[in-house]
Amino acid sequence: MSDQHRPDLATDAVFVASAPVPEDARIVRGIDYSQDASYNMAAKDLVKSMSTMGFQGSSVSEACNIIDEMRSWRGEHIDALKAKDETIQGDFDAEGRQRATIFMGYTSNLISSGLRDTLRYMVQHKQVDAIVASAGGIEEDIIKCLAPTYMGAFALPGKKLRDDGMNRIGNLLVPNDNYCKFEEWIVPILDTLLEEQNAKAELVKGSAADVLNPENNVVLTPSKLIARLGKEINDETSVLYWAYKNQIPIYCPALTDGSIGDMLFFHTFKSSPQQLTLDIVGDIRRINSQAMAANRSGILLLGGGLIKHHICNANLMRNGADWAVFINTGQEFDGSDAGARPDEAVSWGKIKSDARMVKVYADVTVVFPLIVAATFASERPN
Amino acid sequence: MSDQHRPDLATDAVFVASAPVPEDARIVRGIDYSQDASYNMAAKDLVKSMSTMGFQGSSVSEACNIIDEMRSWRGEHIDALKAKDETIQGDFDAEGRQRATIFMGYTSNLISSGLRDTLRYMVQHKQVDAIVASAGGIEEDIIKCLAPTYMGAFALPGKKLRDDGMNRIGNLLVPNDNYCKFEEWIVPILDTLLEEQNAKAELVKGSAADVLNPENNVVLTPSKLIARLGKEINDETSVLYWAYKNQIPIYCPALTDGSIGDMLFFHTFKSSPQQLTLDIVGDIRRINSQAMAANRSGILLLGGGLIKHHICNANLMRNGADWAVFINTGQEFDGSDAGARPDEAVSWGKIKSDARMVKVYADVTVVFPLIVAATFASERPN
Amino acid sequence: MSDQHRPDLATDAVFVASAPVPEDARIVRGIDYSQDASYNMAAKDLVKSMSTMGFQGSSVSEACNIIDEMRSWRGEHIDALKAKDETIQGDFDAEGRQRATIFMGYTSNLISSGLRDTLRYMVQHKQVDAIVASAGGIEEDIIKCLAPTYMGAFALPGKKLRDDGMNRIGNLLVPNDNYCKFEEWIVPILDTLLEEQNAKAELVKGSAADVLNPENNVVLTPSKLIARLGKEINDETSVLYWAYKNQIPIYCPALTDGSIGDMLFFHTFKSSPQQLTLDIVGDIRRINSQAMAANRSGILLLGGGLIKHHICNANLMRNGADWAVFINTGQEFDGSDAGARPDEAVSWGKIKSDARMVKVYADVTVVFPLIVAATFASERPN
Amino acid sequence: MSDQHRPDLATDAVFVASAPVPEDARIVRGIDYSQDASYNMAAKDLVKSMSTMGFQGSSVSEACNIIDEMRSWRGEHIDALKAKDETIQGDFDAEGRQRATIFMGYTSNLISSGLRDTLRYMVQHKQVDAIVASAGGIEEDIIKCLAPTYMGAFALPGKKLRDDGMNRIGNLLVPNDNYCKFEEWIVPILDTLLEEQNAKAELVKGSAADVLNPENNVVLTPSKLIARLGKEINDETSVLYWAYKNQIPIYCPALTDGSIGDMLFFHTFKSSPQQLTLDIVGDIRRINSQAMAANRSGILLLGGGLIKHHICNANLMRNGADWAVFINTGQEFDGSDAGARPDEAVSWGKIKSDARMVKVYADVTVVFPLIVAATFASERPN
Repeated sequence: MSDQHRPDLATDAVFVASAPVPEDARIVRGIDYSQDASYNMAAKDLVKSMSTMGFQGSSVSEACNIIDEMRSWRGEHIDALKAKDETIQGDFDAEGRQRATIFMGYTSNLISSGLRDTLRYMVQHKQVDAIVASAGGIEEDIIKCLAPTYMGAFALPGKKLRDDGMNRIGNLLVPNDNYCKFEEWIVPILDTLLEEQNAKAELVKGSAADVLNPENNVVLTPSKLIARLGKEINDETSVLYWAYKNQIPIYCPALTDGSIGDMLFFHTFKSSPQQLTLDIVGDIRRINSQAMAANRSGILLLGGGLIKHHICNANLMRNGADWAVFINTGQEFDGSDAGARPDEAVSWGKIKSDARMVKVYADVTVVFPLIVAATFASERPN
Repeated sequence: MSDQHRPDLATDAVFVASAPVPEDARIVRGIDYSQDASYNMAAKDLVKSMSTMGFQGSSVSEACNIIDEMRSWRGEHIDALKAKDETIQGDFDAEGRQRATIFMGYTSNLISSGLRDTLRYMVQHKQVDAIVASAGGIEEDIIKCLAPTYMGAFALPGKKLRDDGMNRIGNLLVPNDNYCKFEEWIVPILDTLLEEQNAKAELVKGSAADVLNPENNVVLTPSKLIARLGKEINDETSVLYWAYKNQIPIYCPALTDGSIGDMLFFHTFKSSPQQLTLDIVGDIRRINSQAMAANRSGILLLGGGLIKHHICNANLMRNGADWAVFINTGQEFDGSDAGARPDEAVSWGKIKSDARMVKVYADVTVVFPLIVAATFASERPN
Repeated sequence: MSDQHRPDLATDAVFVASAPVPEDARIVRGIDYSQDASYNMAAKDLVKSMSTMGFQGSSVSEACNIIDEMRSWRGEHIDALKAKDETIQGDFDAEGRQRATIFMGYTSNLISSGLRDTLRYMVQHKQVDAIVASAGGIEEDIIKCLAPTYMGAFALPGKKLRDDGMNRIGNLLVPNDNYCKFEEWIVPILDTLLEEQNAKAELVKGSAADVLNPENNVVLTPSKLIARLGKEINDETSVLYWAYKNQIPIYCPALTDGSIGDMLFFHTFKSSPQQLTLDIVGDIRRINSQAMAANRSGILLLGGGLIKHHICNANLMRNGADWAVFINTGQEFDGSDAGARPDEAVSWGKIKSDARMVKVYADVTVVFPLIVAATFASERPN
Repeated sequence: MSDQHRPDLATDAVFVASAPVPEDARIVRGIDYSQDASYNMAAKDLVKSMSTMGFQGSSVSEACNIIDEMRSWRGEHIDALKAKDETIQGDFDAEGRQRATIFMGYTSNLISSGLRDTLRYMVQHKQVDAIVASAGGIEEDIIKCLAPTYMGAFALPGKKLRDDGMNRIGNLLVPNDNYCKFEEWIVPILDTLLEEQNAKAELVKGSAADVLNPENNVVLTPSKLIARLGKEINDETSVLYWAYKNQIPIYCPALTDGSIGDMLFFHTFKSSPQQLTLDIVGDIRRINSQAMAANRSGILLLGGGLIKHHICNANLMRNGADWAVFINTGQEFDGSDAGARPDEAVSWGKIKSDARMVKVYADVTVVFPLIVAATFASERPN
């Protein structure tokens, strides 16, 4: 190669010509600081500016767009539907027009975090229609009505914490006494529920097998127990309270996997030889039926694991959701459902292939306050 | 500052003197390639060489050490225990000596992967004593007896796959026909189970409430249903089959969260107004009791989410496990239980503070074949 | 165990009593939606509400507090210092009072993203005092003055993109033509720089070795070349332009690792047997001296890798920074410097042990717009 | 909906029929424990069994296949090439046949880990042809010849470590005294190098500008300095020693970013007004030329950041590498080059679109010992 000339192999590779950029291509731009509104920016402006930020910044913006679309979609009026003699199903707005059914899933740690207030706000104002939570997402909501959770640090040593009776959740601390208070609160309720179960069982006419007939309502399901806990806690800071009040079902198929499970376990000794029964078949029927009944369906997932799979699976029953927003830190490389991209759910028919969908790779506590501020809480509710 | 001399501020900071290194400090070393055994290395040698590798290499080595410790621990002989008139609980080896109860948890995707053969091997040879799996970890084991899963790629587009009826799990593909075959297989079993439930309900003497008395065994729990599926599949390639055969309970509190749930959902229409009931209270009693009965307890977690929390929570009932190996890709920064280090479980009393414990940050399919080769499968079983 | 009583082993473990909670413990709380300001929330309010959110939400809030502390710290007045006959070093505010020297590092992809406008804003308003960037963080700033970058998608197939001459950076696309334009722009500058180098070399009096004497300024360093590029581009949208204008050094020890390197490579053929020389020893002297001169030092890291290590290492020369904010997605488990927590830097003396420090585990594009809106851009600059 | 019949909407969605599976589809299978070789398995057998494991297990297997392909490829014989009067370039095997040029990149922490012995083995036996390392990957290799690195733990508090003069790298500890020893070793070498630089400068005939003419070899580049350090250390445990011995260039464009930079910084005070010069333009010419000269090119990346970008960028000069194996823990969602998949490099022309390529998502210390055992060290070298 002559030193006088640039090497062709390299220059040909480096200076490959580009095909024309499509006319509708969006240019990457950030925040325009020539605007007054760019200082101490408001959520909606910030999120709008992030739409051409790139990486997860633009994903946050897209998540807001999708959420606004799913919550503002309106279909036919209920009267028009009735005229056509159709069965009335799904959710309607106050004016009687069809709206989307929004399935929100969240993991336990989010109720432990300050995000609980945001989730409660959304449930209070009927902004979601079905919830799937892990067990801690149920009990920690109740426990926070009884005693607070505190800020801690990720690096606090476990032995010292155990000696002090302080349970760590990431950088949060829950005094173990809180669980003692929870026991005091829930045991009388479990006693009552067992009495009610037995009383209903006795009331059932016909064969003993009818005790298990779901139409006879003898056996509790997790969603029914959760609604009852919401009623009993009767506290306006509680997610469960408002879900009960607004008849928003909270599904939790593995409700025994946490402190409620501990209490149910202990209760089996107290109630022996009888036992409170919690049936999960009734709830799979309920959530799947809710998905099938939806006029349109939106998925809003905060975290991964069971809550993610459960909501997506329910939406398979309607051949896929119409909108999907996933927010979590899982990655796809290990083949976990937690880390799977929305496009994996498309292959299963859980999200429609033409649905608008996005995954935001972020800890929920970082992005969801901003997302809610720019969407569900962009205006004070009536 | 004079240019003639080194700056004191910087040199003082850079050349801080060290305290003496403790005598038992271990020097970082890798593989010694002067050894013949260092070529096409065998698992045990490789793992041993990795003990002073650093980072996750040394964590893999430590995981093997802990596994070998938990599986080789032996306590008193059963005869000595009987002489002391104690209730005999927990697990014993073939010679009658106490051994540790090993709780293994795995997520659904591992059964979809080739790791199923490894998990089956361990269950076949009674190397674990209790299993917690997510719903897919149950049904995919059965489905693989009916039809295979195929290699795919992470980047295959969802729409095309849905059109072709191919479901993607990471870089694996499950033809949707497999689920049709699963339905054909399981529906008759569900029919039979409903008949049995009703027949047992009728057999119960006494009040209708006794139908729900667990001693009367009318209502199924997930672990009982899973054992039945293991019996019915009757296939030596199956994890469930060997778990049934070897009386190793498989717990799955959210058993409805998957294809089995789909089938149970459909079955509710077929069986209406009756319904198969699946009670989760019975299983929380069972797993917690198993943890309390253990002479020593070892935790082996492959993945995160429900399966991780459930096993750790059961071990709280005995004031903590004695050994713990976590293998997953979760990170603690988002406060998820999935990503929590073992030391967080210590704060809750789920692992003893003096237990030997390690978390290996890795996709299970990368490290577990090696770990098993160096431990559970280091020698051909008798 | 009697079924009539709860098992002592379990109840003792579950109901461990707590030590009293310290009086200054902070209760986990989220957003108070009873406030008008909680709707379409402004950045400062949002960040304040996140302080007791937990997980990374509270880390974002802490990052803002630290940034506000480092940028508002003021020491003695320059006149008082002069009176004491001290050498005047470090940075001072417009009123002549000592302020902290802020070292900001960012990776190349952030300049490709819309965040460039935010970084440019900060440099324009002299809110940072030294920058370390990777090579792409230099050239992409110039290239964006010549032609735009576009929004793309993470899943676009590489072969098609290469055929179309479109280069992908995450979900962004840079037409390859942009690099052709960059070549046209930079080659004449490189020609001039070589002429200047040779002219200066000839001007040097004394021995030939004096050509390499840094006092004679014959040889360029990366930071000097970067300043020159900033001057030449003369474009108010450019980070480099404002850094040049405001005399904020931009360090980039591996400046050849990117398109500029390609151009320098090609230029060696054109200029042969002569060659532009880029010395990195001069720049390590410069950045370390700047760290030593700082009255107080703050670290603001956006991303990991070289830029992170380089800024921390410079701060070792002053026995540690006084404030540190790390924002990236790296994890510590693989022993990478990219993923190391601030506390690892404390062990090296790169951050003072009593410094206020935080790591935010997040993609920078998600959190930095919000953080800047609540700090550097909380008020319109004068 | 009638309760007597299964809901059509759901059954149609759940029981979508599959297109026929392609005949060459590979069935997911794991280890066959009926084989004797499945116990305490050897590396090659283990890796072979992992090929249909799925997730990253199969990626590890694919990485081994690619490595074996790149290291065993052979082209024409040198005599045949000479007969055609072509310029002889690239690498040849001992028999004179063309072989691939393998570019290996590794981050600093891997030299700190026990993996250094593996890397040294590969360099000793000429299994790679070019190396790119970060600065710590140079100096820690030398320092380990002077004093050992020790096993520590990720959670050791930074303040105590700083007080003890112990520097933490993940779960490793380097006594600060090691750096004092390094200074003692390197300062005389730097003195000599400065003398040599000046002497060469004086020897240059012609104009002063010729001092910077690379043909006159006055100014050092990082790769030349590194080779000199390898010669001086003269220690068979050293990577640098064998690289020097085997004339394998080690590139490190940001060589000043670490302890060597500290020493060079201090040396500028000692040598003032003269200064050792380190030119990075010479090295970009060298690495790019090496990539262009390669008959075939293979990429082997251990970690991310600079080392990854630098090797890929050099391969752009030859219009893409022929094989690529990436092993690191980076994720693409933040748009970092560190986390980019190989397919992003395809869009840039850095890897050929028909190249065989894989990314293994894992900490290098977990998988590389196994990968090397099954490939580079599958047989004892001659």
